Amino acid sequence: MGEKLREPLRQLATQCSLPAALEAMGERWAFLILRAAFNGLHHFEEFQSELGIARNILASRLARFVEHGILERRALPDDRRKIEYRLTDKGFALLPTMVALRQWGERWETGVAASPVLVDERDGRPIRPVRVLSHDGRELDKDGLKWVLREDLPQDQAQAAE
Amino acid sequence: MGEKLREPLRQLATQCSLPAALEAMGERWAFLILRAAFNGLHHFEEFQSELGIARNILASRLARFVEHGILERRALPDDRRKIEYRLTDKGFALLPTMVALRQWGERWETGVAASPVLVDERDGRPIRPVRVLSHDGRELDKDGLKWVLREDLPQDQAQAAE
Repeated sequence: MGEKLREPLRQLATQCSLPAALEAMGERWAFLILRAAFNGLHHFEEFQSELGIARNILASRLARFVEHGILERRALPDDRRKIEYRLTDKGFALLPTMVALRQWGERWETGVAASPVLVDERDGRPIRPVRVLSHDGRELDKDGLKWVLREDLPQDQAQAAE
Repeated sequence: MGEKLREPLRQLATQCSLPAALEAMGERWAFLILRAAFNGLHHFEEFQSELGIARNILASRLARFVEHGILERRALPDDRRKIEYRLTDKGFALLPTMVALRQWGERWETGVAASPVLVDERDGRPIRPVRVLSHDGRELDKDGLKWVLREDLPQDQAQAAE
């Protein structure tokens, strides 16, 4: 991976929308709020009391997630003064990223296995470490990967890719 | 996922080292530098010219990655004035996170399939989308996941978990 062909880095630097989204997540409190949302928290007061975060910071981070389409803000039908924040489909789609990051943190930052543990609802067994897999399910590390221009892929594979 | 048992959010808010690491990555330029490192860039001048980044920002971000143990700074043996920045094992271990994030960005931010594409070095076929998998390889979404206290797992599973 990464010897000859590369991503168009300069173009990414000026045009990529991902860093903006990542900045929305990457700030310390923002990440903890997102993590709390994945833990099933929905209300301003819940986030506030569970995280012990200042109200103005919480308000600004929630607004930023709403702006990025990661959280959705809605009034409850039975009491419109009550506001809920819920992960959108785009927000939930961050699950593999969040889990991969949590596992990385456990292995390389804290060095301890965290509790609670994420398990399969169906059989109660812990999930696998999140990995990059080949089309037929082999684990790939960086030496097992390379870049190919999309136009150089066979057409059926180009459509299926990522 | 997330209805009853939760992660210890307040404790994470005060003690978790992950947000610090994430802040190191989460800032716009930091992320692009990390991405460039995964693309095989090693030298200050390469990062500078490929990304079009200001030298002082580049220097501070590289220093932060070195401080977090994600990049390693070393002098080349044949010319000690030449400095290389290389991903450490801890840095490379961010591969699933980076790939998951790239795929998320393609699907939800840019909406277009990017080129180049990451493929398996062995057979040239595009990688799978990064997913959370059960121990036996089924894809799990948030409804397929729950939290369990580590001490409530059977001992063999607790050891294998994450």
